[in-house]
Amino acid sequence: MAEYTDLEKKAIELCKQTVRMTTAAGSGHPSSSMSIAHIVTALMYRVMRYNPKNPWLNTADRMILSEGHAVPIVYAAYCDLGGMVGTAEQPSELSFDDALTLREADSVLDGHPNPAIGFPFFDSATGSLGQGISVAAGLACAARVDELDRKFFVIVGDGESREGQITEALDFVMDHNLTAVRPIFNCNGQGQSDYVGPLQSADNLAAMLVAKGFDVKEIDGHDFAQVIEALGAKAGEKPIAVVAKTVKGWGSSQLTSGNWHGKPLSSDDLEKCLADLDAKAADLGEVSTEGIAALAAPEPMAENVRPAIHAGAFSGAVKAAGMEAALEAGKLSTRRAYGAALLSLGVDPRITATDGDVKNSTFTDMFAKTFPDRYFEARIAEQNMISVAVGLAAAGKIPFASSFAKFLTRGYDQIEMAAITNANIKLVGSHAGISLAADGPSQMAVTDMAFFRALAHAKRVDGRPACRLFQPADAVAAFKLTELMANTDGMCYMRTHRPDVPFIYGEQETFEEGGFKHLVDGTDLVIVSSGYMVHVVREAAAIMEPDGLEPSIVDVYALPLAKPEDILRMGDDCNGQILVVEDNYVGGVADEICAAAAASDLGVTVRTLVLDSIPKSAKTPQEILDATRLSAGHIAAMAQQIFDTVQ
Amino acid sequence: MAEYTDLEKKAIELCKQTVRMTTAAGSGHPSSSMSIAHIVTALMYRVMRYNPKNPWLNTADRMILSEGHAVPIVYAAYCDLGGMVGTAEQPSELSFDDALTLREADSVLDGHPNPAIGFPFFDSATGSLGQGISVAAGLACAARVDELDRKFFVIVGDGESREGQITEALDFVMDHNLTAVRPIFNCNGQGQSDYVGPLQSADNLAAMLVAKGFDVKEIDGHDFAQVIEALGAKAGEKPIAVVAKTVKGWGSSQLTSGNWHGKPLSSDDLEKCLADLDAKAADLGEVSTEGIAALAAPEPMAENVRPAIHAGAFSGAVKAAGMEAALEAGKLSTRRAYGAALLSLGVDPRITATDGDVKNSTFTDMFAKTFPDRYFEARIAEQNMISVAVGLAAAGKIPFASSFAKFLTRGYDQIEMAAITNANIKLVGSHAGISLAADGPSQMAVTDMAFFRALAHAKRVDGRPACRLFQPADAVAAFKLTELMANTDGMCYMRTHRPDVPFIYGEQETFEEGGFKHLVDGTDLVIVSSGYMVHVVREAAAIMEPDGLEPSIVDVYALPLAKPEDILRMGDDCNGQILVVEDNYVGGVADEICAAAAASDLGVTVRTLVLDSIPKSAKTPQEILDATRLSAGHIAAMAQQIFDTVQ
Repeated sequence: MAEYTDLEKKAIELCKQTVRMTTAAGSGHPSSSMSIAHIVTALMYRVMRYNPKNPWLNTADRMILSEGHAVPIVYAAYCDLGGMVGTAEQPSELSFDDALTLREADSVLDGHPNPAIGFPFFDSATGSLGQGISVAAGLACAARVDELDRKFFVIVGDGESREGQITEALDFVMDHNLTAVRPIFNCNGQGQSDYVGPLQSADNLAAMLVAKGFDVKEIDGHDFAQVIEALGAKAGEKPIAVVAKTVKGWGSSQLTSGNWHGKPLSSDDLEKCLADLDAKAADLGEVSTEGIAALAAPEPMAENVRPAIHAGAFSGAVKAAGMEAALEAGKLSTRRAYGAALLSLGVDPRITATDGDVKNSTFTDMFAKTFPDRYFEARIAEQNMISVAVGLAAAGKIPFASSFAKFLTRGYDQIEMAAITNANIKLVGSHAGISLAADGPSQMAVTDMAFFRALAHAKRVDGRPACRLFQPADAVAAFKLTELMANTDGMCYMRTHRPDVPFIYGEQETFEEGGFKHLVDGTDLVIVSSGYMVHVVREAAAIMEPDGLEPSIVDVYALPLAKPEDILRMGDDCNGQILVVEDNYVGGVADEICAAAAASDLGVTVRTLVLDSIPKSAKTPQEILDATRLSAGHIAAMAQQIFDTVQ
Repeated sequence: MAEYTDLEKKAIELCKQTVRMTTAAGSGHPSSSMSIAHIVTALMYRVMRYNPKNPWLNTADRMILSEGHAVPIVYAAYCDLGGMVGTAEQPSELSFDDALTLREADSVLDGHPNPAIGFPFFDSATGSLGQGISVAAGLACAARVDELDRKFFVIVGDGESREGQITEALDFVMDHNLTAVRPIFNCNGQGQSDYVGPLQSADNLAAMLVAKGFDVKEIDGHDFAQVIEALGAKAGEKPIAVVAKTVKGWGSSQLTSGNWHGKPLSSDDLEKCLADLDAKAADLGEVSTEGIAALAAPEPMAENVRPAIHAGAFSGAVKAAGMEAALEAGKLSTRRAYGAALLSLGVDPRITATDGDVKNSTFTDMFAKTFPDRYFEARIAEQNMISVAVGLAAAGKIPFASSFAKFLTRGYDQIEMAAITNANIKLVGSHAGISLAADGPSQMAVTDMAFFRALAHAKRVDGRPACRLFQPADAVAAFKLTELMANTDGMCYMRTHRPDVPFIYGEQETFEEGGFKHLVDGTDLVIVSSGYMVHVVREAAAIMEPDGLEPSIVDVYALPLAKPEDILRMGDDCNGQILVVEDNYVGGVADEICAAAAASDLGVTVRTLVLDSIPKSAKTPQEILDATRLSAGHIAAMAQQIFDTVQ
């Protein structure tokens, strides 16, 4: 104990600051913070190799605070160390008292870890529980690719460990033997509304970790000798996991009695708590904490310059992917074209990929075979897969994470946290919409357009979209949009489709953020569509021809639309009539056009033909389109009906 | 072996039908089906107490096929048994050859289990993996409430077991000691794109189950003696779990070589496979399967009549919940009012509740204390919580599942599967929008309006909405809408808010599906809002008064709107101007009004003031509204600007 009296005193100082901060904020989680006081102090002042003056250092060890609500004590330490915040271009230094700005509107000390607003000590936003080990695993995958010796310390709550993503992440760590990841289970025995259940007791967690193959260190989380030995231990053949028994509200007689989860102390109680902590400090005798600082940091890696990445020519890439027959046949599915693009892009060492055991359906398998060192199989665990991608992106990689679009729904919370993080991840969901037909609704993504469009209309701190949503109508578009995603900073989502479809675009066609294509110039009305449905609309136009109806056809391949008014003007030129056709529920392209039209003075009328019932299986795309009233015949009939009303 | 030759032969017959079915469908998963041939045969012909002629029997044992893609062999058996499909009112009987309609557009034999289209043998749609044990757990909770001796057999794939929800569900089964649930892990060692990883080997799964406290039976899944003993075993003090080693493509030389996941045989290969299976049958000698049938079923429970449920008077309920001070203060948060309503509704024995360790924030804790037998704590595992609710609903309960609205995002895939199931579940998400302020974006639900509105516009088989979305603006509305949800058949989602807000409505106010309230009758423009933002709009109107601007104010408390045209007509009367205000991203009320306006001839202009950037922490609702440009001042300024343009 005597060996660590300086750290003991530091931990007490940080606890004092933590209760001050949360009382000043009027909210926050002092008791959770104090349960990890010694772990955080050990990591930030003794174990981690990093530099608080340069949190952007790409070779340093990192802390991932999975139980994000315990962040005040980390802020207290980082302020104490004079850590830098802001951006690498415009950094600013924190002082001890800056910790007291916790949760203020203009403070970077957000209620939960939030790197995107200027707190680069963290790699990912946390606070929705259970995601930290996955992020650390992604960082560790990147470190392996870069051959860097970094450690990733993840602090996880015991109650939090109930989240299924935790076991997904632990399995992933074992699958890939990521010894750089060090999960630390903070077992204080209390959740928010009750004690932690027996399945998440320290003993049971340790047994579960042993069963998975971890080298488990069970420690007293307030004993620095044990803490430092466990955290600093060099991993052998197996990853190490630490199970630390701790006390919620450590050091405060009040915060250790009853349920104080998420409750700051009143001003009166604060004084009593500070006195408790001062008494603990006095027990240590005369101790100086002056000499304590973060360990010397490692040398930086060469700067991660980011030139544009080229996928090359479409036809060449398709041939290289062994799909030359498609060029002759004149048709290829968008999911296969994505696979070919990813394979071509793979020559850039920043490109990495992960998939949830459907790589032979999403066509990431070609990348996986060719670049096995940069492919990380995530198996059937989509939540972990998304958060692993967040970790890879934080380390400068450009991760593509793929599964059926429907199964990515499993990770919508992780995706939203990635958006908050402003993580540079690329999500590709295959078998979108209803055109996969036979497998039925459990495999059909039909809410994804609404969810991602919502994110796409949220702006990041720099004013750019929090997410870009792409839906290619043909293989060329899918290929070029994959390349565009790789070169676009920030989260992108592309949905691809199962069926082979004819080429619409030539090799030289270009695609851009927020863009659309005016495929056919007509006079009678504008039909707007996206993805697979563009082909059905084209088929509908062919049916109309004998009747003389000549629609304009627009392919909206990107949301948010940069210039929806251009489509409205087309509608204005076509009797003021627009029909939007989609094979997903409301919330996607149709609402994008409707919102623009409703705000506009042009007086354009927008009608929509979208999926309006829960689909079921059918043997072919044609049958499912018939059953859901979205076939070419239905589209043609609706177009005629719209046209008749304006005659 | 000889003891079970009739079952052996039956299993082979079912395998033959399975390969025929999938070849006829041109898709499907014969190899997965054949790996569970003996397990399914044992369950459906020997172990389960049920009646294929009455799949609606509320006392029978049930099968939950978590690995939904293996459904063809269950269909084959159910058709062989002449099982009933359709509805209880209009049932129809299947014949052996009906199995060959697999995946046809007008067949109830969907690509994956899909009870909502008329296959009542199943309780929930599956096919998105990892959800079955949770559903079974919900059914078991209901059986405990009803004091029924039922068993729930769940067939889970080994690759599927990687999904974190599986461990969440197993933990829940142990927490509540649900011995009626019998998970059966089908360990054939193969996933879709690769072999199953070592963490999901039969041995590791068994070790994990033992660590959790299950009584584990490891068996050969093709040996009827072992299968029947394990499946039929009476549980002692601990729940039993079965780990069955099986062979993917059992019985076919072709389907057991290489990767045949999800691939049907060609017509030529089909003949070879049938010959393989015939040879296996010949090895059994002369055996008759004539005498095989499902076990005698238990007696039905008294019919589950469903009278309306009454929450009683608002003020009485609020007093009963110990919140009488709110009545004097004239303000109460919507989340507390929900808690009071749930407590009042609890007198009806069908009402059950579950929560993810935040019951003291969502205010389900009052119900939990008063009705502990019908409260099922789910701890920090939202995916499992949602699917447990699906199981409770399938057993005739009316389950309310609550958490922070943000954390329900964790279960969006489960929620979508619940919508496909047409499950009668009630979801209540607290702390919605940005008004919780201090905790920051990781706790703010801002995409939920888009997601649930998408579901709300999808119709079920009976033409009603797949989901109803409610957002009360005050405590009275929250109270009444909770009562409405309890009395509405089908999935409902209500979002509540953290802050206390003044009462808007009197106790006698009534609320209905698809409704809205015209709060203030003005002349200059219509301001439409919902939830917490209704108060901010009212504040904005108060700011406007000195300038003489008189807006109409509309509270949209329900989506989908039954009559959006009524709001458009109000706009038409107010200079043709509507402003919609929301503290979530696009996709919610604003898009609902815009879509109606864009399709209408009225020429109403709709502008929107929605959350358009990723929020961060701020100390108070006022500060976060200021930071996101959604404050009363911003609303008033925009209203004035709109008004100025039409002058």
